[in-house]
Amino acid sequence: MNKTACIVLAAGDGKRMKSHKPKVLMNVLFKPMLGWVLDSAEGISPGEICVVVGSGEEQVKKYLEGRGRSCTTARQAERKGTGHAVMQAENTLKNSENVLILCGDAPFIDEETVLNALKVHTEGGCGVTVITAVPDDPFGYGRIIRDEKGDLLKIVEQKDASKEELAVKEINSGAYWFNSRALLEALPKLSQSNAAGEYYLTDAVSLIRESGKRAAVSTAQNKYIVLGANSRTDLSSLNEYARERVLAELMEGGVEIPCRDGVIIGKDVRIGQDTVILPNTIIRGRCRIGSSCEIGPSSLIESCTVGDGVILNNVQAYESVVESGAKIGPFAQLRPGSHIGQNVKIGDFVEIKNSNIGEKTSVAHLAYLGDADVGRGVNFGCGCITANYDGVNKFRTKIGDDAFIGCNTNLIAPVEIGANASTGAGSTITENVPADSLALERADTKIIEHWEKNRLRKKK
Amino acid sequence: MNKTACIVLAAGDGKRMKSHKPKVLMNVLFKPMLGWVLDSAEGISPGEICVVVGSGEEQVKKYLEGRGRSCTTARQAERKGTGHAVMQAENTLKNSENVLILCGDAPFIDEETVLNALKVHTEGGCGVTVITAVPDDPFGYGRIIRDEKGDLLKIVEQKDASKEELAVKEINSGAYWFNSRALLEALPKLSQSNAAGEYYLTDAVSLIRESGKRAAVSTAQNKYIVLGANSRTDLSSLNEYARERVLAELMEGGVEIPCRDGVIIGKDVRIGQDTVILPNTIIRGRCRIGSSCEIGPSSLIESCTVGDGVILNNVQAYESVVESGAKIGPFAQLRPGSHIGQNVKIGDFVEIKNSNIGEKTSVAHLAYLGDADVGRGVNFGCGCITANYDGVNKFRTKIGDDAFIGCNTNLIAPVEIGANASTGAGSTITENVPADSLALERADTKIIEHWEKNRLRKKK
Amino acid sequence: MNKTACIVLAAGDGKRMKSHKPKVLMNVLFKPMLGWVLDSAEGISPGEICVVVGSGEEQVKKYLEGRGRSCTTARQAERKGTGHAVMQAENTLKNSENVLILCGDAPFIDEETVLNALKVHTEGGCGVTVITAVPDDPFGYGRIIRDEKGDLLKIVEQKDASKEELAVKEINSGAYWFNSRALLEALPKLSQSNAAGEYYLTDAVSLIRESGKRAAVSTAQNKYIVLGANSRTDLSSLNEYARERVLAELMEGGVEIPCRDGVIIGKDVRIGQDTVILPNTIIRGRCRIGSSCEIGPSSLIESCTVGDGVILNNVQAYESVVESGAKIGPFAQLRPGSHIGQNVKIGDFVEIKNSNIGEKTSVAHLAYLGDADVGRGVNFGCGCITANYDGVNKFRTKIGDDAFIGCNTNLIAPVEIGANASTGAGSTITENVPADSLALERADTKIIEHWEKNRLRKKK
Repeated sequence: MNKTACIVLAAGDGKRMKSHKPKVLMNVLFKPMLGWVLDSAEGISPGEICVVVGSGEEQVKKYLEGRGRSCTTARQAERKGTGHAVMQAENTLKNSENVLILCGDAPFIDEETVLNALKVHTEGGCGVTVITAVPDDPFGYGRIIRDEKGDLLKIVEQKDASKEELAVKEINSGAYWFNSRALLEALPKLSQSNAAGEYYLTDAVSLIRESGKRAAVSTAQNKYIVLGANSRTDLSSLNEYARERVLAELMEGGVEIPCRDGVIIGKDVRIGQDTVILPNTIIRGRCRIGSSCEIGPSSLIESCTVGDGVILNNVQAYESVVESGAKIGPFAQLRPGSHIGQNVKIGDFVEIKNSNIGEKTSVAHLAYLGDADVGRGVNFGCGCITANYDGVNKFRTKIGDDAFIGCNTNLIAPVEIGANASTGAGSTITENVPADSLALERADTKIIEHWEKNRLRKKK
Repeated sequence: MNKTACIVLAAGDGKRMKSHKPKVLMNVLFKPMLGWVLDSAEGISPGEICVVVGSGEEQVKKYLEGRGRSCTTARQAERKGTGHAVMQAENTLKNSENVLILCGDAPFIDEETVLNALKVHTEGGCGVTVITAVPDDPFGYGRIIRDEKGDLLKIVEQKDASKEELAVKEINSGAYWFNSRALLEALPKLSQSNAAGEYYLTDAVSLIRESGKRAAVSTAQNKYIVLGANSRTDLSSLNEYARERVLAELMEGGVEIPCRDGVIIGKDVRIGQDTVILPNTIIRGRCRIGSSCEIGPSSLIESCTVGDGVILNNVQAYESVVESGAKIGPFAQLRPGSHIGQNVKIGDFVEIKNSNIGEKTSVAHLAYLGDADVGRGVNFGCGCITANYDGVNKFRTKIGDDAFIGCNTNLIAPVEIGANASTGAGSTITENVPADSLALERADTKIIEHWEKNRLRKKK
Repeated sequence: MNKTACIVLAAGDGKRMKSHKPKVLMNVLFKPMLGWVLDSAEGISPGEICVVVGSGEEQVKKYLEGRGRSCTTARQAERKGTGHAVMQAENTLKNSENVLILCGDAPFIDEETVLNALKVHTEGGCGVTVITAVPDDPFGYGRIIRDEKGDLLKIVEQKDASKEELAVKEINSGAYWFNSRALLEALPKLSQSNAAGEYYLTDAVSLIRESGKRAAVSTAQNKYIVLGANSRTDLSSLNEYARERVLAELMEGGVEIPCRDGVIIGKDVRIGQDTVILPNTIIRGRCRIGSSCEIGPSSLIESCTVGDGVILNNVQAYESVVESGAKIGPFAQLRPGSHIGQNVKIGDFVEIKNSNIGEKTSVAHLAYLGDADVGRGVNFGCGCITANYDGVNKFRTKIGDDAFIGCNTNLIAPVEIGANASTGAGSTITENVPADSLALERADTKIIEHWEKNRLRKKK
């Protein structure tokens, strides 16, 4: 028996989104709304998290697997209302004392709100505790009518509300703590006899209260917990709100953002003080950025760890590590598995893929290093290439410290260049080069005089 | 005799724009305001569209030719008012029953508004029907004063209006349907005896009404039809309004736009559902984008057709076709005449120009393919180049299916690489390579030992 | 004895910024706030400008040196208030008749405001003239209470103000003109006996008035002179305000900005009419941009001079000159010291560094020209490289008019290519090439038939 459990309602379709994806997988700051909700649910460590799936069931399950945290699922075969959705998670109710119900499409629920409500719920020995909010505009939400003790009297939907009730600003967020046994007893009594023909979870709240158990109210400080999205325009608004909130927090912590245009920073990103974020920069996934960096303009950083004092100017970087003092860009890409050492310089039109680049190495222009292990202080001339693919297999290239790789050198992997070795410009190197040696592949040069005249003659 | 004709007033200069271009050629979402007006005019298929030109006459005529739809022009040699402008289009009036007058610098007039007004005009047997709007702020516009039947009593300019008249929110849009004969009769009676010394078209409205013909009013639902631009700041506002409207429509149709910053999508662009548009992306000209694509960040797509599930990450593409499943970028350019097959992969620092790339072909990095016809399943190593220009002429390169082009290969066009053929890294290929063969141009490699020491010695 | 001097208070730390930099070095439009203030101070050519430094003293002094204009500094070892800060500049007071006091962290003070106040100050024979403003929201600022003549009666701080005083909208900007002798006499009388234990400069104003000298008020038209920043969020607001103001002025002058997103243009940038600035474009440092250019999208131009009709599409350019008619980008970089001639074409994935490129020369794709002097009408094939670095020294490359450099040519500097000379594709050129000649470095080509089969066999 778990003390607490959580049921996340994630079966809705969201037809107005006009999407092949179910609604809970729609992104806010590049993370599905369901992911935001699960982050908060996991944050309070309940005994079980059960996700009620329905629309796009396979996609949702795939997403849950990708998160790599265990949760159970229950299947709601038909859309018959929130009460019906919870009925599908009967086992979760049976195995817990109290259960948190969250909406998978209201991403801004937070741990503090949930824990405050749990305290009210358990200390008051309640049958149910409704989590409420006071948004700027309560229109459309169920209003919270309290009794003389401040407990819940009833929840009145917009369309059923009197003028006085409509004046109430406190509304039902759709998140609740239930005593699991009380909810189990109430669910079979729900009725479909309403206009929509659905089982409403709010009816369970009424039934529990009528059964003599306490129905408490816990008001969230965070008024945004109620925000959801029914359309792409709503989704755009959620993104804007979340974006502003993240940027405000970063600035509070000492990050410099002279212009917010096009700056989107995910919720799982941490950035050190004095780092400057320039316009049109996306940082997403789990990222750790150090202090005194300059990121942007026009950079896209995904799931990277970046040290201090790093410059990423017009760079796209994925699943890589950049050590302190590295300067990268403009116009460069780090593909997954790149580890860029301290004080490395990577210039324009350079791609690094699945490679280790030693400290102080310079790759200044127009180069591709893939599957390479490069030492310290290496200098790559312009146009250097590791030819890591023979059409069938991929091989690694190894380059020793302080090597000098001439312009337009092709390194045909597998190959090893020794420390302090050099390669001549334009050489294709197919064999290992010993340390301190020069490898040169070059034909004799012919000069054909008066050639320009011949060529011009040909034009006619 | 045409049932309907249209006269577009496009002779103004717009001095406050401080531009070498006439005002009607100033762009809204990268399309001249005159183009917006002509799109709507053409949409109702009038017998003739006559554009009254004046300022920047040659530039306007050139633009009209470039549109490739026939319209006539009339020349207003001097700027003497809207009435005078219409006088120049006398032939258009003589050859039509009813004529629509539109302002070439009010881009948001729409077909529905025009057709609704035509219905009022013809069903009522009117001498003139004034198209009106009710903007948020009527300041500066001529107010519509109606008679007891709801027909036009008079149009009162801002400066002449009484307090009561100023309170009227309905204003003259400057667009009208006239009975052509009635207008022809009225025009000679217009007078220049006003402060500006101009012939006003609004005086023709009064004269027609005074002659006993009906002057009707047709109120547009679209309050933006009155918006024009006298300054660059106005123009910026028109752009913002148009931008927001296009983006809202796209989101309504299922397009995902998490952040609108720097996203500018032209009026002639269609985008399928579930396609995501990332920040700083411009899509303009006539474009068709499929569903489930990801376009951006920082892409510029002009006059392209793009299939489903395509990724264009930091790509500039012009007058090209990209088939479904292709992944392009980051940092790539498609120049005009490129046709990218299904599931092609084009990576970073790649330019494709006037080439056909067969399906599943890969051009992963730092390559230029110009004037090339490439088969299916070809693999280009990094740094491959088609040398399509000899300083005088351009030639094509042909590459068969499943060929393997080694890194830094130069293909000197005209040249043909057979199916399944390979080229060695660093080779310059000047002759055709048979199918299944390897072509290799490479000198012997020399290794000079202890060279690094010599080089270091030279430093001193 | 100088007629006027200026003391800039620049010793504050700005803890809420959470920065290693002192507050006055925080940037607005990429220029330190202190730089904005010094620009205005220098604009009125005072006899001496003395900057009172404290927090981050070394950084501030380094910045002052970098500006290259002489000013003196005084050191405030401890933060004991504005009055104490001015005491450190005693010498400046002794050597001047009137002194302007400015806050180093209120960047929007302007010359006109300062000169208007000086006129009031000197014509009125004042002991002090307080520069005031009327911001939208006076909350938090010291209110200006005037006497019956309109002169200053007193400055009342927010916390000490009565309800009536709080209703006053005119506030103390913190900038003043003082009679230097009057201020010198008042400073020793300042007291620390207040809650903060600081010496307040406003007390000096009171003392001077009480001594019978006139305390005048000069109200600035520019309400933004009072704006400062205590937090990163404030700083973001200052940037937004400054950005909008610069863009509005540019549009007023005929610059076209269809969408302002990500467009940041510094205060020392001049742009000609009909130039279009596309989104996500930063122009900073001292820049002169001609007319009818198209800059952006996604360009970063720093300290450059650009002619007329230039296209810079997705370009980063630093400390370079671009002559009229040049077309550069997309995806190109000009590093410092580049001079691009008229009608030059530079295409994608090209870097130019410290080079002169003659008119009509074409560098269309994937090339690096560093330390090169290139003539007119030269054509560079794709992939050309100047190998300007041998690991120890850098050398220059010289290329004559109308030369034709074949694809993937490596030019090993120092080297000279004559006029009309050509190089063969894939050649590495280590020796000078005479005019009109072709230089070719190429091995024989071998064709190995049925190689594909062998290769496929190897796969197994």
